[in-house]
Amino acid sequence: IAKEVAKLLEMKAQLGGDEGKHKGGGKTPKGTRDYSPKQMAIRERVFNAIITCFKRHGAEVIDTPVFELKETLTGKYGEDSKLIYDLKDQGGELLSLRYDLTVPFARYLAMNKITNIKRYHIAKVYRRDNPAMTRGRYREFYQCDFDIAGQFDPMIPDAECLKIVHEILSDLQLGDFLIKVNDRRILDGMFAVCGVPDSKFRTICSSVDKLDKMPWEEVRSGGGGEKGLSPEAADRIGEYVQGGGGLDLIEGGGQDPKLSQNKLAKEGLGDRGGVFEYLTLFGITGKISFDLSLARGLEGGGGVIFEAVLLQQENDHVEGGGSVGSVAGGGRYDGLVGMWGGEGRKVPCVGVSIGIERILGGGEQRVEASEEKIRTTETQVLVASAQKKLLEERLKLISELWDAGIKAEVLYKKNPKLLNQLQYCEERGGALVAIVGEQELKDGVVKLGGGATREEVNVRRESLVEEIGGGTSQP
Amino acid sequence: IAKEVAKLLEMKAQLGGDEGKHKGGGKTPKGTRDYSPKQMAIRERVFNAIITCFKRHGAEVIDTPVFELKETLTGKYGEDSKLIYDLKDQGGELLSLRYDLTVPFARYLAMNKITNIKRYHIAKVYRRDNPAMTRGRYREFYQCDFDIAGQFDPMIPDAECLKIVHEILSDLQLGDFLIKVNDRRILDGMFAVCGVPDSKFRTICSSVDKLDKMPWEEVRSGGGGEKGLSPEAADRIGEYVQGGGGLDLIEGGGQDPKLSQNKLAKEGLGDRGGVFEYLTLFGITGKISFDLSLARGLEGGGGVIFEAVLLQQENDHVEGGGSVGSVAGGGRYDGLVGMWGGEGRKVPCVGVSIGIERILGGGEQRVEASEEKIRTTETQVLVASAQKKLLEERLKLISELWDAGIKAEVLYKKNPKLLNQLQYCEERGGALVAIVGEQELKDGVVKLGGGATREEVNVRRESLVEEIGGGTSQP
Repeated sequence: IAKEVAKLLEMKAQLGGDEGKHKGGGKTPKGTRDYSPKQMAIRERVFNAIITCFKRHGAEVIDTPVFELKETLTGKYGEDSKLIYDLKDQGGELLSLRYDLTVPFARYLAMNKITNIKRYHIAKVYRRDNPAMTRGRYREFYQCDFDIAGQFDPMIPDAECLKIVHEILSDLQLGDFLIKVNDRRILDGMFAVCGVPDSKFRTICSSVDKLDKMPWEEVRSGGGGEKGLSPEAADRIGEYVQGGGGLDLIEGGGQDPKLSQNKLAKEGLGDRGGVFEYLTLFGITGKISFDLSLARGLEGGGGVIFEAVLLQQENDHVEGGGSVGSVAGGGRYDGLVGMWGGEGRKVPCVGVSIGIERILGGGEQRVEASEEKIRTTETQVLVASAQKKLLEERLKLISELWDAGIKAEVLYKKNPKLLNQLQYCEERGGALVAIVGEQELKDGVVKLGGGATREEVNVRRESLVEEIGGGTSQP
Repeated sequence: IAKEVAKLLEMKAQLGGDEGKHKGGGKTPKGTRDYSPKQMAIRERVFNAIITCFKRHGAEVIDTPVFELKETLTGKYGEDSKLIYDLKDQGGELLSLRYDLTVPFARYLAMNKITNIKRYHIAKVYRRDNPAMTRGRYREFYQCDFDIAGQFDPMIPDAECLKIVHEILSDLQLGDFLIKVNDRRILDGMFAVCGVPDSKFRTICSSVDKLDKMPWEEVRSGGGGEKGLSPEAADRIGEYVQGGGGLDLIEGGGQDPKLSQNKLAKEGLGDRGGVFEYLTLFGITGKISFDLSLARGLEGGGGVIFEAVLLQQENDHVEGGGSVGSVAGGGRYDGLVGMWGGEGRKVPCVGVSIGIERILGGGEQRVEASEEKIRTTETQVLVASAQKKLLEERLKLISELWDAGIKAEVLYKKNPKLLNQLQYCEERGGALVAIVGEQELKDGVVKLGGGATREEVNVRRESLVEEIGGGTSQP
């Protein structure tokens, strides 16, 4: 039954039934959503883990506009260009919403003649794709990108990108994962060896990339049919990519006689040996799989490509249905920056993009559905009063606390009931309560109570800030 | 001369000459810009100050999509609607980029039937306005919004919003500032008393709001001419708004005989007394000015409005020309949420929006122009080697450091020169350098040096993490 429910939920989500729901009036555009305070709290934890990792690797941070000149994006995404959001021509430049953070980064490098930078960028990107919300596929979603640009010795930055993926997926405790690695040069060499004409490399690439979603026979018939590939070439490719294999190729050091005759493939296989050595030094080869069937397209690519997937957990079907799939991807794009002209200004780049929506999808839904308490504020103390007509005294006290840097709230009522104030305090995740009353005012004290373990005590007014500051465990 | 240069710079900026500059290839759309790592570092400091303040006041955080259904924005911005960016109709919904964070917030409340929340939201908004970059006017810019929604006793949340503006502008040390306060009810009452027909309130409002940019005579002629206001009515308004006054009205408790006969104005004047009392308790009346000429338009408004301006500094002309002008604004919009239907679901709101571009403009330009060192990474240590052929040892060591949470970098060269490594270290703001050499490897130590005050010392490898972790002053 759980499986059936999950299936229905997913179908509903794919139909776009969930995103635009308007319990009240108004709705968000298809494939987009608001983030509630609870969702933001979860999101910030994940961002913090990712940013901490990016900073651990010495990255600077940049930001770019949400839209680019349309011409900046043109010719960078192949078939996927149809998913780009264009802005209306309102007299002026033709603009499009950014599709990823990679092309804006390359444009930034070209425009500012930067040849050397290690930066991260966390921002929303936009794709007019079919949304599937429970699977974490949105039209507006965050990407967390880390990239290394510069002319360096081979495979060292590439290996660091893989290390970063490994660190982040481990830190976030998402269960078992696998990072598939391949090389566009090996792929292209393989296509050449199998007799695929140059002009078909791109389309065959995207066919091969579908191998994790359908069996080889289906890919083959699609490839051999509408893509105009000869059955013989298709069969030869099949031998290479089936079984998800290729590890023997690397361990054997490129012993495949046909492949190693191809110049491109030989170069790729050699570098693959290098990256394997560095990953061994990093101690992360256990989660790495060299996989000839990985063929994600990167414009201006030509070297390492990789993709991280979360592996099926036994109870996955309970948590929203289907595989979470790819949660990170990346690779080389040495040719991209050069697309903005400037002869000889080649800036080799390699980077990784973490897709947090898929990572978060399940967790957020669980939290929203459950009554799990997630603190969404950092309020330390609620300033309250036991009797009426003490608004002025409450405001005077809270103003003192704010000015001393204490996170404090007050109910916006002239004469709130004490019970309502205590309840508010409870909802704020067990903040303290500082009560002013006529007796306390006379005695120059404040009654401090609440919190997890605290008894009510009278605190001298001049010691209150210190008492609150030290008395709570600040996040 | 400085004045002339500043004038020229501003003219250049207004012509849009600065934003799209392409030293290399590519450019950003008109009125937008990238943020360099230096600019991001400055920006993060300002955001942190603002977020700290918002959290101090107990706010939760939400986020909304960058675009909304076009219908969500329709009829909310009056004349300014022409500045909204529409997306191209690509088959599907009609979408527009958000113009501010207030309308999406109101839509969020209506859609989720939320009647009670205190939230902040920091995000970019979009306006097809004439950019003037040196004055901090962009087409894509950040707003930092804090809003209180809910049915409360009058003026308490309003006063807190003013306190927040006061705290933030003080924290950021921007020099002297003034927060102008007015009330739409007093304005509307004043217009009624002066004989302005109801249908003209809105247009007169925006005329009056121009008073800080031109003298009354000009506003008057514009108002009396094309706006079709009788000269008598204009003169009567002039009496009220000239001299930036109105403070006597509040101190006299609404003694103006004509105004206090008007029901709306009377209500507004009464509440103005309330807010003045609360601001006195907060100790911030010194920077507050009740100003009848403040007439910023808020759809669905009807109560307090306010605007914070930085006051001219004597050396302003050196720093980019002209007044920085408004850096924050806000007020009541009790009627907005109700626009999404739902009878009887009135959610009174008041909020403030901090505009950080104008605040930052000058500071960023100074930093970019100068050679001032701003740390853009948090790197603690560079792993280096003195001899060749030690790449593997460097990678092994840095991997240990990363896994222990140390922020570390390594040069992506097989055999980098020691001098280059030390220089990189210096550029990274004086991070430490951990040198592995053949002797050190034999002895089981690492040579740790660099930093501000450090001598080179041999540290046992097993103590290295502790030594680095404790030895640097982490931000």
